[in-house]
Amino acid sequence: MNCLLLEPGEWDPATGRARLAGRRCQHAREILRAQVGDRLRVGLVGGRMGQGRIVALDEALLELELAFDAEPPPKRPVELVLALPRMPVFRRLLSTAASLGVERILVVATARTEKSFWQSHDVAPDAIRERLLLGLEQARDTILPEVSLHRHFGSLVGEILPPRLAGRRAIVAHPAAASPCPHRVSGPITLFVGPEGGLLEDEIERLAAIGFEPVHLGARILRVEPVIPLLFGRLLD
Amino acid sequence: MNCLLLEPGEWDPATGRARLAGRRCQHAREILRAQVGDRLRVGLVGGRMGQGRIVALDEALLELELAFDAEPPPKRPVELVLALPRMPVFRRLLSTAASLGVERILVVATARTEKSFWQSHDVAPDAIRERLLLGLEQARDTILPEVSLHRHFGSLVGEILPPRLAGRRAIVAHPAAASPCPHRVSGPITLFVGPEGGLLEDEIERLAAIGFEPVHLGARILRVEPVIPLLFGRLLD
Repeated sequence: MNCLLLEPGEWDPATGRARLAGRRCQHAREILRAQVGDRLRVGLVGGRMGQGRIVALDEALLELELAFDAEPPPKRPVELVLALPRMPVFRRLLSTAASLGVERILVVATARTEKSFWQSHDVAPDAIRERLLLGLEQARDTILPEVSLHRHFGSLVGEILPPRLAGRRAIVAHPAAASPCPHRVSGPITLFVGPEGGLLEDEIERLAAIGFEPVHLGARILRVEPVIPLLFGRLLD
Repeated sequence: MNCLLLEPGEWDPATGRARLAGRRCQHAREILRAQVGDRLRVGLVGGRMGQGRIVALDEALLELELAFDAEPPPKRPVELVLALPRMPVFRRLLSTAASLGVERILVVATARTEKSFWQSHDVAPDAIRERLLLGLEQARDTILPEVSLHRHFGSLVGEILPPRLAGRRAIVAHPAAASPCPHRVSGPITLFVGPEGGLLEDEIERLAAIGFEPVHLGARILRVEPVIPLLFGRLLD
């Protein structure tokens, strides 16, 4: 945790103070080994960032005096369309995507997406939000990416994606693509990352028909989890 | 598994056949749903790649008729110097680094590396080799990266790294660096990726003194696990 995030209802703007228990209190004591008087980097979920001076700390409670005086870092202009992966990967990728500064995540079904994955508790809004917050705490950001779930590939490609792609470069990672992935693309990007096992040729054709460029990442077939930061490092400045 | 890897002693060059039990047999049946007559992509650890035609398959045994007729993909010209992370991350990163085509991995101790991590079974040669093989199977490669362990930062920086850096671009990821990480570097690269919590300023200075350029990846502090593929995507063509 490189930044302690508070929900708007967790501090009192009149006194400038917040009293926190649980995970954040424990983290301050055990991981940061913080003491009364120390200053921690803090952020208000959906709002500003700043510093919190510790005015009290014991096993059960962390009390902070807060000053919010800075803006969170700008989001990266990236919308990620992600085939729902298996749950351990999904949990980690939500945090990673939030830490990378993704604006929006569309979680989608493809032909090779396991249907049973949609039944997991990990795709519930609260579970997703928790994983995103971990990524924001890591990256020192306060703004949650928007996340939406799309269980029908047909309506995603037919109705939802086309109006969103105006003015954006749309790229789909596909090992059999003819072109390599470009470096340093300017302007907003929509990235489609398919499932382990890949997209079907028919799915690639439907994405190409609405403007997605299929690109490859070399001869090596990579897992979804490293592909997302790899594309970020490559495409963004 | 995008490629079934065999150890050199597991096939008979006289008959061109191999009989496999265990994980690979189970994978062929349950994940690939393969049947007699199907062809699987195969590779010989440390050697060539090719195809294996299934001549027998039951719950206990997979028998293949092998033809090795192709070279593995070239390695990427990258040597990775990695501060030993906590074990779940280490296990995944070994597979990821092997799949990305890293030539060599130096696993090192830094001031913020937990000493207890070195006691884990996961740093034993057999455990490391197993994780590397998973990455090679993923990426369709047969050549294991060399891995060495270095528990003394002083001798690493004083003796081991300097002669290795001749003719290479040496880069260390450091959030406080003045320069952003470059794109598309030509020639061989040595990448230093420190621990969660970062390298100390003193460690950065000692690395800079032997030729490492500190570079940042933007305002966001990222975990070690996505940083490695991110650097790969950015630095390599």
